[in-house]
Amino acid sequence: MAFEIKAKIANFGGQLLKLEHQSTSTKTKMALNLFLPPSAISHPSTKIPVLIYLSGLTCTGDNCAEKGFLQPHAAKHCIAVVYPDTSPRGAKIDGEDDSWDFGSGAGFYVDATTERWRNNYNMYTYINEELPSELFKQFEVLDGGRVGITGHSMGGHGALTIFLKNPGRYLSVSAFAPMSNPINCPWGQKAFGGYFGEENKEKWAEHDATELVKVWEKDMTLEALIDVGTGDNFYKQGQLLPENFEKAAGDKGIQVRYQEGYDHSYFFISSFAGDHVNFHAKYLCNQVFC
Amino acid sequence: MAFEIKAKIANFGGQLLKLEHQSTSTKTKMALNLFLPPSAISHPSTKIPVLIYLSGLTCTGDNCAEKGFLQPHAAKHCIAVVYPDTSPRGAKIDGEDDSWDFGSGAGFYVDATTERWRNNYNMYTYINEELPSELFKQFEVLDGGRVGITGHSMGGHGALTIFLKNPGRYLSVSAFAPMSNPINCPWGQKAFGGYFGEENKEKWAEHDATELVKVWEKDMTLEALIDVGTGDNFYKQGQLLPENFEKAAGDKGIQVRYQEGYDHSYFFISSFAGDHVNFHAKYLCNQVFC
Repeated sequence: MAFEIKAKIANFGGQLLKLEHQSTSTKTKMALNLFLPPSAISHPSTKIPVLIYLSGLTCTGDNCAEKGFLQPHAAKHCIAVVYPDTSPRGAKIDGEDDSWDFGSGAGFYVDATTERWRNNYNMYTYINEELPSELFKQFEVLDGGRVGITGHSMGGHGALTIFLKNPGRYLSVSAFAPMSNPINCPWGQKAFGGYFGEENKEKWAEHDATELVKVWEKDMTLEALIDVGTGDNFYKQGQLLPENFEKAAGDKGIQVRYQEGYDHSYFFISSFAGDHVNFHAKYLCNQVFC
Repeated sequence: MAFEIKAKIANFGGQLLKLEHQSTSTKTKMALNLFLPPSAISHPSTKIPVLIYLSGLTCTGDNCAEKGFLQPHAAKHCIAVVYPDTSPRGAKIDGEDDSWDFGSGAGFYVDATTERWRNNYNMYTYINEELPSELFKQFEVLDGGRVGITGHSMGGHGALTIFLKNPGRYLSVSAFAPMSNPINCPWGQKAFGGYFGEENKEKWAEHDATELVKVWEKDMTLEALIDVGTGDNFYKQGQLLPENFEKAAGDKGIQVRYQEGYDHSYFFISSFAGDHVNFHAKYLCNQVFC
C-alpha cells in the first residue's frame, strides 16, 4: 500500500525520507528509508536509478542510513537509495522476539514455508516485488528499469540471492561481508531450518548464493563487488564463507576483496561505501543526465 | 594519566582507537575516540595535525565517530581527529543523571565553581590542558603545534569559547549549529546557573562566545566556519542565537552559513563535515608532507 512520509530530512543536498506502509506480503506495517539525491528534488521529471541496500541481522533500515555513508556518493551519482527493514515487526508470532539471529530483525529475505512463519515472513516477495512496485508507483522520479542491489552480512546474502534468482532484473550487485553459503553456516542453518523446516533442503538450496551461482547461465557475465574484512570475527567463525562462493562461481568473474584488518561493523561498510556506489553507478547511471 | 587502548578499528585506511584514561581534572575515568589517518600508520615519524571535535548534549565521543563522517576527509588531509566525551561519568554526584541537558552528558566545557560540581566538572581544563597534553605525550605522531577545534551545538559553544579564550593556541575553529550566546538561552542559563551559581554573571560571560568575541583583539583575524540549519528546531526555539554572535563579531570576518532546511542531527553534520575538515586543513596542513 501507499507510503506515509513520516519525515523529510535534509542530507547531502538531497532528502532522506522516513516512510511507512502497510505491507500485503508481511501483513504488518513496514518502515524504511528512501534517500533522494539532490537531482530528484531539483529535476523531479528526470528519472533516476535506484540502489536497494539490505541490512544485516538485528538492524532496521535506520542503521546504514545513519552510519553507512552511501548517501554522499549516491548524491554525486544521482542514485536513490532504499533502506528496507530486515523483517516484519510485531507480527504477534510466538517467539518472534526471542533470538537476535532469527525472527524479528532476521527475516533472511526469504518467503517462509513453515506453518508458524509463512503468514508474515515473506521478505523475499516484499523486497523483490511489493516494495519496488509500490515505490515506483508513488515516487515517479525512480526508474524501475535501473535497479541495483547490495547489502551487508545477512543483507549481502539477500542481495546476492535476489540478484541470482532474477537474471536481468537487477543491473548490478555488490555485497559487504555477505553470508555467502548459508546452508553451511550456523546462522543460515538456524534460519532456514526455522523458515523452511529441517527436511526441506531443496528449498534451502534455492536461497543459497553458493548453490545459485553454480547454475547461473555460463554465458551471462556476473560481475560483483564483494568486500570482506580479514579482522571480521564472523568471517573467522565461518559464518560468511566467501571462499565457497568464489570457488562455486569458478570463472564467472567474481572477485572478493579481502580488506586487511577490517571488522564487521559500519566502520567497515562506510570505508568502502564509495567503492560500492561507484561500482553500481557504472551499471545504473546514464552519464548524459548525471 | 596514560591511555589504555581498548580497541583499534580499521576505518578509511586508518584506525579509530577507543581510548580510556583516568583524568586528574574530572577525577573519573574518561573514554574517547582518536582517529588516526592512514599516514599515521604508514609514516609514524611524520607528525600530523589534530582536530578536536566536541560533541553536543547527551552525546559521548562515539556518536560523531559513527555518524559524523569527518574521518574520510581527515584521512585525505592526514589529520587526526579526537572525539572526547561531553562530561565526567559516574562521579557519584547527587542528581548528576537527572537531566539530559545538565550533569552527565552536559558538561558544557567549563570548570564548575559551585560546591556540588567543582570537584569533577572541569571539562574546560580537561579539554584545553589535560587531554591534549596526555595525547601528545603518548602519541608522538600528533603535532601539538597544529591543533584545530570544532564541535556541534553545546560542543560548538565549547569550540568557539575555547578558541577565543586561548588566542594563538588553536590554529582554526569551526562549529556546527553552535550554542552561540549561552547566557541568553535556556540551555545555557540552566547550565551556567548550576555550574557557576545564579549570581556569578561575570563567570557566565567568561564562557559566552558572543561576549568573548566582543573583546577579541581587533587586529587578530578571526575566520571561522559556522553552519546552522534553517530547519533546526533548537535554532528556531532560540537555543543557538548565531545572529547574536555574528552581530557581536562585527567586522571580524565571521560568517554564518544558514543551510536551507537542515535540522540539528548528524544528517546535518555529516552533510557539511567535508567542508569543515577542508576548512581546518587550510590552517593545519603542511602541504609538503600531505
